[in-house]
Amino acid sequence: MKTIKPPLVLYNALKKSRLSGSSIGFVPTMGALHAGHISLIRQARQENAIIVVSIFVNPAQFGPKEDLKKYPRPLNKDLALCRKERVDFVFLPSIKDIYSEDFSTYVSVEKLSGVLCGIARPGHFRGVATIVTKLLNIIQPDVIYLGQKDAQQAIIIKKMARDLNIPVKVKIMPTVRQSDGLALSSRNAYLDKKERLDALVLSKALSLAKLLVNSGAKSPLRIISRMKQLISRKKNARIDYIAIVDAASLKPVRKISGECLIALAVRIGRTRLIDNIIVRV
Amino acid sequence: MKTIKPPLVLYNALKKSRLSGSSIGFVPTMGALHAGHISLIRQARQENAIIVVSIFVNPAQFGPKEDLKKYPRPLNKDLALCRKERVDFVFLPSIKDIYSEDFSTYVSVEKLSGVLCGIARPGHFRGVATIVTKLLNIIQPDVIYLGQKDAQQAIIIKKMARDLNIPVKVKIMPTVRQSDGLALSSRNAYLDKKERLDALVLSKALSLAKLLVNSGAKSPLRIISRMKQLISRKKNARIDYIAIVDAASLKPVRKISGECLIALAVRIGRTRLIDNIIVRV
Repeated sequence: MKTIKPPLVLYNALKKSRLSGSSIGFVPTMGALHAGHISLIRQARQENAIIVVSIFVNPAQFGPKEDLKKYPRPLNKDLALCRKERVDFVFLPSIKDIYSEDFSTYVSVEKLSGVLCGIARPGHFRGVATIVTKLLNIIQPDVIYLGQKDAQQAIIIKKMARDLNIPVKVKIMPTVRQSDGLALSSRNAYLDKKERLDALVLSKALSLAKLLVNSGAKSPLRIISRMKQLISRKKNARIDYIAIVDAASLKPVRKISGECLIALAVRIGRTRLIDNIIVRV
Repeated sequence: MKTIKPPLVLYNALKKSRLSGSSIGFVPTMGALHAGHISLIRQARQENAIIVVSIFVNPAQFGPKEDLKKYPRPLNKDLALCRKERVDFVFLPSIKDIYSEDFSTYVSVEKLSGVLCGIARPGHFRGVATIVTKLLNIIQPDVIYLGQKDAQQAIIIKKMARDLNIPVKVKIMPTVRQSDGLALSSRNAYLDKKERLDALVLSKALSLAKLLVNSGAKSPLRIISRMKQLISRKKNARIDYIAIVDAASLKPVRKISGECLIALAVRIGRTRLIDNIIVRV
C-alpha cells in the first residue's frame, strides 16, 4: 500500500495503470473509517485491479459553525484498516495541496443542492461537488463508490458526473447499520451513552415509514406526521427535516409511487445525524 | 477526417489513441472559423498525433438579449477548412447532446468572471467554464489551444484547469489581425462597410496605449483617458469598458508594472467587439 500526498504524484503513479487499461476503483472518504466505508472498499476491491481510497476532511463542505475542527481524524487506525483491506493507494493530500491560496473555482449542482440537507447546510454540496470533481480529475477512476447513507450527496455526484460528462461509473452501496438499526456514521463518535440510545429514533422513524408504506399508506404528509410523533417522544431529539421526495429529482412527492427517498436529519443533543431509506411502490 | 455528433462516440473513438499514449490536441470553437482559429489548428497539428476541433455554438454563454440566434453558422465552409488543415475529428454535438432537459451543473470561476466582459455579460463565463469542462471530459486532450483575443476566457480556463486538477496544458496563441490591425472575430461579419472602418478604433486605441507605455507612461488612468479620447471621435463607437489589469488576477493596477492586460470592449453600431494587448514592463 502506498500513501501519497501530492496530487500530481498520485496522478502520475496511476498513469501506468490507466494506460495498461487496468480498472481503477475509488472510495472518497473523510477518514474515521467505519464498517460503511469498509463495505465500499471491499466492493471496490472485488471489482477493480487498482483501488484508491482518499482521506481528506474537506473544509469547503463545512459551514462556519460546523464541526470541521472536531471532526475525528484517527489516521493511524484508518491506514491500518486500509492496509488490511488491501488498498493500493491511500491519497492523503494536505489542505494546501487541494486549495491553493487563490483557489476560486466551484462546481454547483443546482436544484438538487438547495433541498433537504442543503437548506441547513448552504454551500455544503457545492463543497462536495467541487472536491469530488477534483479527486476524479486526479485519480480518473473507472468506478467511484459511495454510500446510500449520504443519499443526497450520492445523487448529486451521479448527476454531476452525467451533466459534466465525467467518464466514471457511480456505484451507490447500501447503508451499513449497527445491529440495533443505527446507521454507521463517523459523527456517531460524538454521541454519549444516552444520546446513542436516543439516536435510534432516526432508524425507528424510517422503519415506521416503511411499515406504513408496505401497509398501503400513500400520503407523504400523514407518514411524515407519524414519524414526527415518534421522534418528538425523545426530548433530546430536534428534527431538522423529514422529507419524502422523488429519488432522482429530490422533489417532494404528493403521493407515494415509483421510487421515493424518505430522508431525515435530526439533532441528538449537539450532533446532527441523517438517515434515509428508499421505498419502491 | 471524422465528423462525430454524440459525445460518447467521440469519447470511445479517442479511447484507443489515449491508451496508446498518442498526444491529443484540442481546439474548441463556435464555428465561423477564421484565420485566428486556423492558427490554433495549425499549432495543434504541429504538436499532436491527433487533433480534435469542436464546433458548438454554446447557448449557456449567451445572455437572453445577445446574438445566439444570428451567430454565423457556415458549417460546410468550416468543415472544408478543417479538412484542409488535416483535422482528425470534428466534434459537432447537438444542443440536446450537450444539455439534457434537466441539466443543472455549472462550473464557476469566481473573481475572474465578474470583471471586464463579465460585467456586461453576467453568466457568460460560467457558460464558458461549464462547456469547456464538459468538452475536456469528453475529449481528454493533452493540450487545449485558445486565442489571446479572448484574453479573459483564456485566463479563466487556465485557472479553472489548475483549480479543478484537470490534466490538460492550456496554450494561448497570439491574436491574429487583419493587415489594418482589426483583430479577427466571427462577429466582424456583423459589420457593414462604414462600421468595419470604425472598428479600427479598438486596435488603434491599443496601439496608442502601447506607445504611451513604451514612452514611459505609468498611470493607467491617464492611458485610459487618452484611449477614451481617441475612441470618442467615432460617433458610432460606444465604449463598454477600457481596463488595465494584472494579467493573471485581472485586478486593476495602480501603476503599469509587471505583466498588464490592456483590454477593451466597444460597441460599433450594434456589434460588441473586444480586443486586448499584454504589455510587460
